Amino acid sequence: MSFTLLSSTPTERGFAARRGVLRTAHGDVQTPVFMPVGTQATVKTLEPRDLKELKVQILLGNTYHLLLRPGNEIMALAGGLHSFMGWDGPILTDSGGFQVFSLAGLRKIKEEGVTFASHLDGHRIFMGPEESMQIQSHLGSDIAMAFDECVENPTPYDYAKASCERTLRWLMRCKAEHDRLNSLPDTVNPGQMLFGINQGATYEDLRIWHMQQIAQIDCDGYAIGGLAVGEPTEVMYQIIEAVEPYMPADKPRYLMGVGTPANIIECVARGVDMFDCVLPARNARHGTLYTWEGAINIKNEKFRHDDSPIDPTCTCPTCRSFSRAYLRHLFVAGEMLAMRLAVMHNLHFFNELFARIRQALDEGRFEEFRKEYAGVWK
Amino acid sequence: MSFTLLSSTPTERGFAARRGVLRTAHGDVQTPVFMPVGTQATVKTLEPRDLKELKVQILLGNTYHLLLRPGNEIMALAGGLHSFMGWDGPILTDSGGFQVFSLAGLRKIKEEGVTFASHLDGHRIFMGPEESMQIQSHLGSDIAMAFDECVENPTPYDYAKASCERTLRWLMRCKAEHDRLNSLPDTVNPGQMLFGINQGATYEDLRIWHMQQIAQIDCDGYAIGGLAVGEPTEVMYQIIEAVEPYMPADKPRYLMGVGTPANIIECVARGVDMFDCVLPARNARHGTLYTWEGAINIKNEKFRHDDSPIDPTCTCPTCRSFSRAYLRHLFVAGEMLAMRLAVMHNLHFFNELFARIRQALDEGRFEEFRKEYAGVWK
Repeated sequence: MSFTLLSSTPTERGFAARRGVLRTAHGDVQTPVFMPVGTQATVKTLEPRDLKELKVQILLGNTYHLLLRPGNEIMALAGGLHSFMGWDGPILTDSGGFQVFSLAGLRKIKEEGVTFASHLDGHRIFMGPEESMQIQSHLGSDIAMAFDECVENPTPYDYAKASCERTLRWLMRCKAEHDRLNSLPDTVNPGQMLFGINQGATYEDLRIWHMQQIAQIDCDGYAIGGLAVGEPTEVMYQIIEAVEPYMPADKPRYLMGVGTPANIIECVARGVDMFDCVLPARNARHGTLYTWEGAINIKNEKFRHDDSPIDPTCTCPTCRSFSRAYLRHLFVAGEMLAMRLAVMHNLHFFNELFARIRQALDEGRFEEFRKEYAGVWK
Repeated sequence: MSFTLLSSTPTERGFAARRGVLRTAHGDVQTPVFMPVGTQATVKTLEPRDLKELKVQILLGNTYHLLLRPGNEIMALAGGLHSFMGWDGPILTDSGGFQVFSLAGLRKIKEEGVTFASHLDGHRIFMGPEESMQIQSHLGSDIAMAFDECVENPTPYDYAKASCERTLRWLMRCKAEHDRLNSLPDTVNPGQMLFGINQGATYEDLRIWHMQQIAQIDCDGYAIGGLAVGEPTEVMYQIIEAVEPYMPADKPRYLMGVGTPANIIECVARGVDMFDCVLPARNARHGTLYTWEGAINIKNEKFRHDDSPIDPTCTCPTCRSFSRAYLRHLFVAGEMLAMRLAVMHNLHFFNELFARIRQALDEGRFEEFRKEYAGVWK
């Protein structure tokens, strides 16, 4: 349960792209890495054996969704999320914070935590730092995320300041509870790590102050949260650049909820190690498929007669067996198989993108790679 | 492209259960056999490699649906249905007749054929025996079904008589056109077989007369159509018993659209070799899953905490990896993976049912098998 920085490749203005390996209780993760989102104990349409075939290294599970369904009790009975969903590789769980602040209703935030209404049936739930740690401990994930407040964009300075001060106090409580839970004799995954989350909206001074503070708490890694929530891409890059110098170099860095292939390459260049995003799966469901020459929409009329694969250079199970014409037919006919084949392709593409990023870093040609692909995907 | 009757096991009142092997241009089919329905060039949620894993021997494709989408032109361009959908095993295509008479609108039946409105966009289409043969020739299936009229249940005697007389005349035209198409130098599958279809509603005399007539036309196999359309199960068995003695013993016999596991065992006992039905896939989508002790509905509250597989004796990919509690969670959460895992299980179950029927026949204990399972599935 440790992170090893394998290499650091200078990019520009003092930043560096990093190669690393994160050891978890369920295996090693080569970074930079992409984590597909398995919200409800499944990556939509896929089985764990499919994820292995697509070379997925680590999954993201959603604590908020799993608390609502199937619920803590079922998860405890199953012996954790790995066993429940049949995935034996590494899992990171978010804290539930983001969903509590974006999806749930009737929120009341106090120092102790948040009372909110389930978006499914409206029943009232309380979640604070301790509850989030307890649920994630039951899930038995390899990485637990600290419980934080993710403020709206834009947010007034004073609110953002008070919020990130509270998020800092919550992190201290998370750390204490996490240590306690990990030391229990019957804990599901005693090797579970805890990542702190940097907040501070789009205010550089708050972001830096908060990062300096959380860096003093001994977390296993640090995330940048509250970005990619509607602010311009340039603002996102500026915040990462402002915060990066204050992130411990020997700990993994995770940029939450990002992003497009172009975002990913630019953020790797700014020192980010871990990413998650619903984009490849959501785009797949709408027929937007990635190729190494840009994205296409497979539902387009021009693919009706196209008997070539999505990408002729792609080795994914979809491209190995099916034509664009067949995929378009499945989409137009409303067949569920369309979703599955499209999700497989896009996830394979994202994993391959990261494999190529890692290879470019290992071979000392990341800047060439970055330039070559800068304009391919908008 | 031939049928070999391997054995014939007397059951009761002169009937016999049959073991056979049907040689097709895409491989051998051991009978009795179940054919999953791949309406729109896919068995819902499954890839061809999944079908292989589930030991599917032969697929059914729907001519009517494939004519509407993707259309004849796309299919011709792809070089047939096998290549379009990536399935290299045997395929049987229906004639389109059943859908024309059950799904399409504004039908006008004449001696030449039927003019009808597409159920998708209302556009007018003409299909007669020649058109059906031409479309199935483009599909390149291994078995083409003759174009027939499938009358409603109940149907007045006079209409049923006139209809099955016309269906006989249509079969003669199908046979002539099929022979012509198979002999063309650029035909997709020159080894395509043609099966005639017995009609005559629930009138034994019409059924027998029609069967006697079509038996004189040299088809590669014979189907019983127009059953399982609302008549009582006992009536279905009576019609099969009336017709069976007039079906050529050296040709395969296919009972269209049947049925439940109990129906299948009873119809095998009456000499049927081939079956198709949407039941396993449709039931799967509603959460009804087969076990060797009966069917269960996985959405039931009592499976919330059940960490055993659907059937502890089942070796399907779903039962090998997932619990009832996990499947129930996927259904309740509305995850598409629920459909896939359920369809895989039910299709595997039907294939296993047929494998056990064939084994019981080979080992001379079919009647014991029949008695043992008579009451398991309602």
